[in-house]
Amino acid sequence: MILLRRELGDVLRSVRREQGRTLREVAQSAQLSLGYLSEIERGEKEASSELLAAVCDALGVRMSEALLSVSQRLAAAEEVAAPVPLPVPDAASVVSSAA
Amino acid sequence: MILLRRELGDVLRSVRREQGRTLREVAQSAQLSLGYLSEIERGEKEASSELLAAVCDALGVRMSEALLSVSQRLAAAEEVAAPVPLPVPDAASVVSSAA
Repeated sequence: MILLRRELGDVLRSVRREQGRTLREVAQSAQLSLGYLSEIERGEKEASSELLAAVCDALGVRMSEALLSVSQRLAAAEEVAAPVPLPVPDAASVVSSAA
Repeated sequence: MILLRRELGDVLRSVRREQGRTLREVAQSAQLSLGYLSEIERGEKEASSELLAAVCDALGVRMSEALLSVSQRLAAAEEVAAPVPLPVPDAASVVSSAA
């Protein structure tokens, strides 16, 4: 099942790592515990809207940018979850090849 | 303060209304109470990731599409919250006009 919190966690973690910052630094700046931020990044806890705003602020990214990345990741996951079906030969061609 | 749950609620409500469907119909299809869906649409409750997936499924929209709309709404709200500053005349022009 595709879950928002997992994609959101991945986006927040990759932004933090691109900035070369530790969980501790960002958690302190966002005024939440290191363990809680870690759970959010791993997609194990839902971030409340207030907390998400605080984490984006601590990372210096706009929420709209973070959510745009999340939307793109969701779209990619949806493509994998619902792939284009393989072409199935129709009944006539199956019958003719069996003859 | 710009909050994800408010923008998300607005998007879910507008999708439902565009489809001409009632809260009751969508809540039944998503297997949650009418009151809870109403609170989510009004941005009063955070939807868990599982619940958001169920509501998107009931509405027949991809989560990625809903989140893209949310991202666009957040961007518009961020522009309003942090407007471009008005141009301020520089000291020289103020001095010359006072002379």
